[in-house]
Amino acid sequence: MGNSRRRPKRRSKRPDEFELIRRYFAPLAKSAPGAFALTDDAAALSVAPGRRLIVTTDALVAGVHFPDDETPRSVAARLIGVNLSDLAAMGARPDAYVMAIALTRNYGVGWIKAFAGELKRQQKAHRITLIGGDTVATDGPLTVCLTALGSVAKGRELRRNGARAGDLIFVSGTIGDATLGLLALRGGIPGLGKRHAEALIGRYRRPQPRVRLGLGLVGLATAAIDVSDGLIADVGHVAETSRCIAEIDVDRVPLSAAARAAVARHPRLRERALTGGDDYELAFTVTPSRRKAVTALARRLRLPLTEIGRMRRAQGVGRGGVPVVEARDGAGHRIRFAKAGYRHF
Amino acid sequence: MGNSRRRPKRRSKRPDEFELIRRYFAPLAKSAPGAFALTDDAAALSVAPGRRLIVTTDALVAGVHFPDDETPRSVAARLIGVNLSDLAAMGARPDAYVMAIALTRNYGVGWIKAFAGELKRQQKAHRITLIGGDTVATDGPLTVCLTALGSVAKGRELRRNGARAGDLIFVSGTIGDATLGLLALRGGIPGLGKRHAEALIGRYRRPQPRVRLGLGLVGLATAAIDVSDGLIADVGHVAETSRCIAEIDVDRVPLSAAARAAVARHPRLRERALTGGDDYELAFTVTPSRRKAVTALARRLRLPLTEIGRMRRAQGVGRGGVPVVEARDGAGHRIRFAKAGYRHF
Repeated sequence: MGNSRRRPKRRSKRPDEFELIRRYFAPLAKSAPGAFALTDDAAALSVAPGRRLIVTTDALVAGVHFPDDETPRSVAARLIGVNLSDLAAMGARPDAYVMAIALTRNYGVGWIKAFAGELKRQQKAHRITLIGGDTVATDGPLTVCLTALGSVAKGRELRRNGARAGDLIFVSGTIGDATLGLLALRGGIPGLGKRHAEALIGRYRRPQPRVRLGLGLVGLATAAIDVSDGLIADVGHVAETSRCIAEIDVDRVPLSAAARAAVARHPRLRERALTGGDDYELAFTVTPSRRKAVTALARRLRLPLTEIGRMRRAQGVGRGGVPVVEARDGAGHRIRFAKAGYRHF
Repeated sequence: MGNSRRRPKRRSKRPDEFELIRRYFAPLAKSAPGAFALTDDAAALSVAPGRRLIVTTDALVAGVHFPDDETPRSVAARLIGVNLSDLAAMGARPDAYVMAIALTRNYGVGWIKAFAGELKRQQKAHRITLIGGDTVATDGPLTVCLTALGSVAKGRELRRNGARAGDLIFVSGTIGDATLGLLALRGGIPGLGKRHAEALIGRYRRPQPRVRLGLGLVGLATAAIDVSDGLIADVGHVAETSRCIAEIDVDRVPLSAAARAAVARHPRLRERALTGGDDYELAFTVTPSRRKAVTALARRLRLPLTEIGRMRRAQGVGRGGVPVVEARDGAGHRIRFAKAGYRHF
């Protein structure tokens, strides 16, 4: 954190960068002895014997990854959510994070206080701690970069490439809420009731990384991924790296009441729900013999885990645009999705 | 790295983000099995038993931390340099890094190729490997955020707070070159010859993190810090956290031939050399009994390690503006530097 305080002091007109860190960020680090109260050059983190560090980094840019006027709470929740979701997809237990934040002078004490307040809530919810960071000035949009650190028992991390022909494909929670929420936020779902719109927008604004599910999938799932690109694309990533074709029954893909209401009014939104991003659910595969174990896990976590398809053997998959995901709708029509995205219904 | 490829695809007009990652960044990760070829949600890194992870993050913003038109090689060298310097200050051996990069469309294939090429050189020089990242679009200045991961034997990390009264203060290399280099780059040192100007600018553009020195100081130094804020401020950080007063003989502070030439022409630049940042040398303290060990280390590393002062006992240091650094010049005049920066000569 030493360097954190250097550049704004020299380059920014913000008068109290030192004080902001001391007041709002250092308290987030106080429970971690290896954070050295954010006063040293780097942080220390112990990784228990027999475990392996899992690390991921994600940056968010105002106007690109969230609206320019997004609330500080939502920015913080999204920043933590997207990163912990990546750890969850590996089956890792999150431990700590470091964060770099590039601020313009438009972001005052009130904004930072609310941002840090949400970080504190997220820390409590996920038992993680800030251990280091960098606060810099920018003339451009707010840019936040978080690196999340977790661990998993050696050799037990969940990978994308472990699915085998015959494996069942599951997805957690409900799909499409976040992308429909973003649409609703922009006024793009006319006629959708306020309650449904708020439910969708809430899912967009405050992603819930499936950390406990990821932990529960270690030793159970053959492959896993978080649904960030969109269900079809992400299942496609698993299929491609596993050299399989994913057969998906789109009618089994779980939609929330709000998403169902949106799709009922605007049937074309079903495609958007299936292919839009930012859900941060987990998609995973298991061998058919483990179906009951998945049911038990869903009950224990009180989280729907829905079987939506199956992996099929394939040759030459993912080369030259050969589709890796095959979907059928309720009418039995087959729909093909290409590697780099999807084909329209 | 999974998420890396998500947002630009959706939000950027750049046509070949996938391809850029595959072609330029994935090769940087190929030697690290835990990077999973940048195709999974997160990376894995083993920390050897008996060692502790050391982690630091630093972000650089174009127009703030380097000129807007800085070369891609210089941006990459600086990004690696500033982060590894933080690890060096902790005595850590660098292992790997993750990187998030926010690009506008102004940065084309040529820029990214040169940037990745310099990363490759840095990787080879420091035996580190890219293991994950995120490539996103921005409408603002180029912003790069790197998180460096290293390790140190448990309990052996160098801290800022370990200096004791009587300890000798040393600094590596030469001081002030980078800040004078930035000044020269802006045409601010009239009359300085081209050769000297280029030497200073090179030091600004391509920081050399003192990784081997940091490793050599483990078990030898009582405290260490990297000189990023400026020598006086950084020695002040050590003094303050160690509850000492640092007595510095400014005439013993090592200046390069180029810096001496600049100061000879413009005597006021001596102050700038002592207080300007970005040198990325290490300042450290040792007990007087280890002076010879420092000399031996300097010889082994072929790196000047210069004794510049001594720590003195202090009470109430660092509270309410009590100076933590006391300096004398050759004429015996005492100069006081305040906590948050320095007082003018």
